Amino acid sequence: MKKVKPRTLSGFMELLPMEQLQFNALTNIIKETYQQFGFLPLDTPLIEASDVLLAKAGGETEQQIYQIKRANNDLTLRFDLTVPLAKYVAQYYGSLNFPFRRYQIGKVYRGERAQKGRYREFYQCDLDIVGENNLSLINDAEMIYIINTLFENIKLPNFIIKINNRKLLTGFCQELNLNNTIDIMRLIDKKNKITTLAFKTELTKLNIKEQDLKQILALIKIKGSNSSILEQLKALNITNKTWQAGLTELETVYQYCNQFGLKNENLQIDLSIARGLDYYTGTVYETFYKDNINLGSLCSGGRYDNLAECYTNRKLPGVGFSLGLTRLFKVLQEANLLPTEPVITTTILIIPLTNNYDYIISCYKQLQEAKIKTQIFSEERSLKSIINYALNLNIPYVIFIGEEEVNNNLITIKNLKTHNQKTIKITDINKEIKNGNTNI
Amino acid sequence: MKKVKPRTLSGFMELLPMEQLQFNALTNIIKETYQQFGFLPLDTPLIEASDVLLAKAGGETEQQIYQIKRANNDLTLRFDLTVPLAKYVAQYYGSLNFPFRRYQIGKVYRGERAQKGRYREFYQCDLDIVGENNLSLINDAEMIYIINTLFENIKLPNFIIKINNRKLLTGFCQELNLNNTIDIMRLIDKKNKITTLAFKTELTKLNIKEQDLKQILALIKIKGSNSSILEQLKALNITNKTWQAGLTELETVYQYCNQFGLKNENLQIDLSIARGLDYYTGTVYETFYKDNINLGSLCSGGRYDNLAECYTNRKLPGVGFSLGLTRLFKVLQEANLLPTEPVITTTILIIPLTNNYDYIISCYKQLQEAKIKTQIFSEERSLKSIINYALNLNIPYVIFIGEEEVNNNLITIKNLKTHNQKTIKITDINKEIKNGNTNI
Repeated sequence: MKKVKPRTLSGFMELLPMEQLQFNALTNIIKETYQQFGFLPLDTPLIEASDVLLAKAGGETEQQIYQIKRANNDLTLRFDLTVPLAKYVAQYYGSLNFPFRRYQIGKVYRGERAQKGRYREFYQCDLDIVGENNLSLINDAEMIYIINTLFENIKLPNFIIKINNRKLLTGFCQELNLNNTIDIMRLIDKKNKITTLAFKTELTKLNIKEQDLKQILALIKIKGSNSSILEQLKALNITNKTWQAGLTELETVYQYCNQFGLKNENLQIDLSIARGLDYYTGTVYETFYKDNINLGSLCSGGRYDNLAECYTNRKLPGVGFSLGLTRLFKVLQEANLLPTEPVITTTILIIPLTNNYDYIISCYKQLQEAKIKTQIFSEERSLKSIINYALNLNIPYVIFIGEEEVNNNLITIKNLKTHNQKTIKITDINKEIKNGNTNI
Repeated sequence: MKKVKPRTLSGFMELLPMEQLQFNALTNIIKETYQQFGFLPLDTPLIEASDVLLAKAGGETEQQIYQIKRANNDLTLRFDLTVPLAKYVAQYYGSLNFPFRRYQIGKVYRGERAQKGRYREFYQCDLDIVGENNLSLINDAEMIYIINTLFENIKLPNFIIKINNRKLLTGFCQELNLNNTIDIMRLIDKKNKITTLAFKTELTKLNIKEQDLKQILALIKIKGSNSSILEQLKALNITNKTWQAGLTELETVYQYCNQFGLKNENLQIDLSIARGLDYYTGTVYETFYKDNINLGSLCSGGRYDNLAECYTNRKLPGVGFSLGLTRLFKVLQEANLLPTEPVITTTILIIPLTNNYDYIISCYKQLQEAKIKTQIFSEERSLKSIINYALNLNIPYVIFIGEEEVNNNLITIKNLKTHNQKTIKITDINKEIKNGNTNI
């Protein structure tokens, strides 16, 4: 038979079982954190009609989609979990309770150039609160508190959440009579990914006068403690209403964050945080790993006034964020920050030294019914190779069952760490194991 | 702005949050059952190169695939989890421990005609043991034991696992000098989905003589208790070696099943179980819900001698099964067999009756840090509508915080079931809730 080379597509992560266990453990921490705050799970399809998914898309997004043409249908793989959420709240509006708190953990697809830290298939872990007509600013601060709790739970040291408010830059541009704020924000969002020279060249391309350019650069470069930055912004004395609203919102959110107990070492107002996506209208935030800031944001989001406007006339403002789990896993793995304690997926391996499977299976069943994770090693192999199997899988105990054990209704259990072994009744095993490694 | 109608594709399941909670609970039971038997998790990509995924496919499979053409790449969405497993074991052979016990729960895609119980996007929950060179028949019986445990854990009453061995029909056809066993098996697999007349017509199309046809029909119709069927098969005195091997295997697996404690009410030898897929070579089984047998098999699988032969020269025999979770969920939902006990996703809803968020957030934080799932309802709404929000989400308690509570450093907690309420210190709340509904 002609062989096909077994291979995984570039940009698609596929893990070995022991890594997969670590990945799942990380996923569980995220899921439990989201559930702790009362968010409800969703699991929307990976495929949607292209006109639904691309209702608001444009530019880069459209170039990166995975499109499927099937019969007369034009379909697209989801590229994020936000658009499916927008569709969902519009579609099931009458059956949902607002503010609607939902989380979703799932794979998304973007045909980007595969490179370190960039995947074409990757997990996003999204959390959003969608309100009806209005949504209090406390929710913006709660989101930041949840991100903070999340990174504490993940045990990533040295993370920093950078916050800003898009109304500031919008108002600032209005003050300068610039009408391409969205383009400017997209560019500011890219700033850290390109050289300073390239950044300035791109800004110039947007037909911004040298004088205005200087002012924008001065604004996004404002540094200092959070309260000092707020003071500096106030001192600019800008009367533009959008700017004023942004400044009030930023200050309010910052105050709530303080009440939520956020520490200044984990929270930094940063006027250069703009987010590339058009739908953000107020608070925006990104989270960085301080020891490797070049990785880009691990977790970002913000406030949007009108999430589902492509699908419904209802005003559904929201605030949320998305965590890039696949990238985060790689970051933690490379920084040796994943738990090293081996996961016990099997507690006991039964090694038959007889063909009396009647007795062996009866012992196995008793262990299973006692919820002790057990396997029987029923292949013919050398004892050494069977023990290696157990050691490779971090199985702490083996049980030997030979003729003597069968005849005396006993089993011999061996602790693979201490090498101690003991011949006992199967009914006494729970006690031995519950007492830990010390007994045998 | 022009609106796009928000909609979900036909054949794609999308659940409301409360249903999603039930779905997730069901998924967890399956996952925990698989883990109880020491299986390791995998999470392979949803997209593979078409030549990898379709290396062994043909016929119906190829017509049903979701194909993606992107740049110069020909890609396909996975249509099952077995082919990705075959690829995986061939690709990572050197890093795996054999017998390799893995489970995978994930979505698969088949462009079938959408109809009741048939989905285009659906979850499969796969469990397989892949051996190296050999794999003992005990594994076949263990699979049946695991399926039995699975349906006990799911609490589906009246399930039956039907088992057979493909070598029987293969040997039988060899005896009759028929050389299109695979076609005959595919047809037998379809038998219950088409009329008897259509079945006979199709068999005739395969150029089978009337006399042979009668014998095949007589074979697959053999009825009786499991031991009686085995006796009847032996009494046929067929000397063909494949038949003999099949009979010995079936009897051995049945005996092991008895040792595993399978009850005859849940296990039935059935010569008409053939499985449509070509790669099965020995034991095969399907599981039915007796109260609605027309639904088709909920969980099926079997033994394959050479899973990864398209990718490697190594002999990797295996045995496994696949549970169709999306269909099972719908079956349980329609039969009212899903747990009706509401899932508590939030224990306490804080209802602010003051703007003193300093105190409110401090109470909220204490509850969160005590791991009590809590939300603050921070939107301006009527009290009635806030209470409805809590009731709709099965939130058992609300906490009122007004000026009086703030001034006295207290909170008022109300049990929404008993309507009792009590004003206490926030630090005493854990005690109140732990004591259950009776205290307040």
